[in-house]
Amino acid sequence: MPNRYFDDLKVGDRFKSQPVEVTGEEIIDFAREFDPQVFHLEPAKAEQTIFKGLIASGWHTAAITMRLFVQTLNFAEGAIGLGVDELRWPNPVRPSDSLSVETEIIDLRLSRSKPNYGIVRLRNVTTNQRGEIVQTMFGNAMVPRHTAFTD
Amino acid sequence: MPNRYFDDLKVGDRFKSQPVEVTGEEIIDFAREFDPQVFHLEPAKAEQTIFKGLIASGWHTAAITMRLFVQTLNFAEGAIGLGVDELRWPNPVRPSDSLSVETEIIDLRLSRSKPNYGIVRLRNVTTNQRGEIVQTMFGNAMVPRHTAFTD
Repeated sequence: MPNRYFDDLKVGDRFKSQPVEVTGEEIIDFAREFDPQVFHLEPAKAEQTIFKGLIASGWHTAAITMRLFVQTLNFAEGAIGLGVDELRWPNPVRPSDSLSVETEIIDLRLSRSKPNYGIVRLRNVTTNQRGEIVQTMFGNAMVPRHTAFTD
Repeated sequence: MPNRYFDDLKVGDRFKSQPVEVTGEEIIDFAREFDPQVFHLEPAKAEQTIFKGLIASGWHTAAITMRLFVQTLNFAEGAIGLGVDELRWPNPVRPSDSLSVETEIIDLRLSRSKPNYGIVRLRNVTTNQRGEIVQTMFGNAMVPRHTAFTD
């Protein structure tokens, strides 16, 4: 897959990632380090909560979404995250769920302060193997322009 | 520290976490798994980027913030994240930075659908050892009411 630059994007472009499976062990490992709450950490006790079983931390879902986004868009020199809005987790992620991310390009503009960069506004929607939405977000990222390397 | 319930909170309450150090190895480990971009992953190449050195993924900062928030507020039965708004990373996190989180309670209301729960709106501000802000966000979380267990 070629490295992508700001100039390669058009508003309305959509990109679909490969799916990735999330294991119960990964859910527990992430929770132990970053979100040590019973419904993310202890399968037996999680059965007694309103989730009726182990679920992934929303931050784990967000991190997996980032990996799929980075791998799929494959920006030359990377995408620098400026911020995220309306991050939501409408359905839980459970062990053995398979997640994929669809990215839509919402807006494109040149950086005012850094002429070699453009600002991409995008929407990422993360779904499980049943097509249920497990995360939505809008993000702004700073991405190198192709012309920066040919001027 | 006692377990905290929704009913223990007042609008305007502030909570300050203990500090935690972030190592270069942790930054690279997180990036390898979730955000494999050169400025998060490869110290020598990161020197050549606009960051002039290795920086943590914003999602890593967000995950560390969650851990500090969970440990500091210590909700009985946990806090269920409903969503996050205006997540920003105004300054980068670098190896050996020491991060702490201040949580302010912005709004409190009872859950409409689940009478045993309240909805907390909060603002988390994450700072480094020099007092520079590395992350800000607003969050909504569902937290058990104390009365749920005494009715």
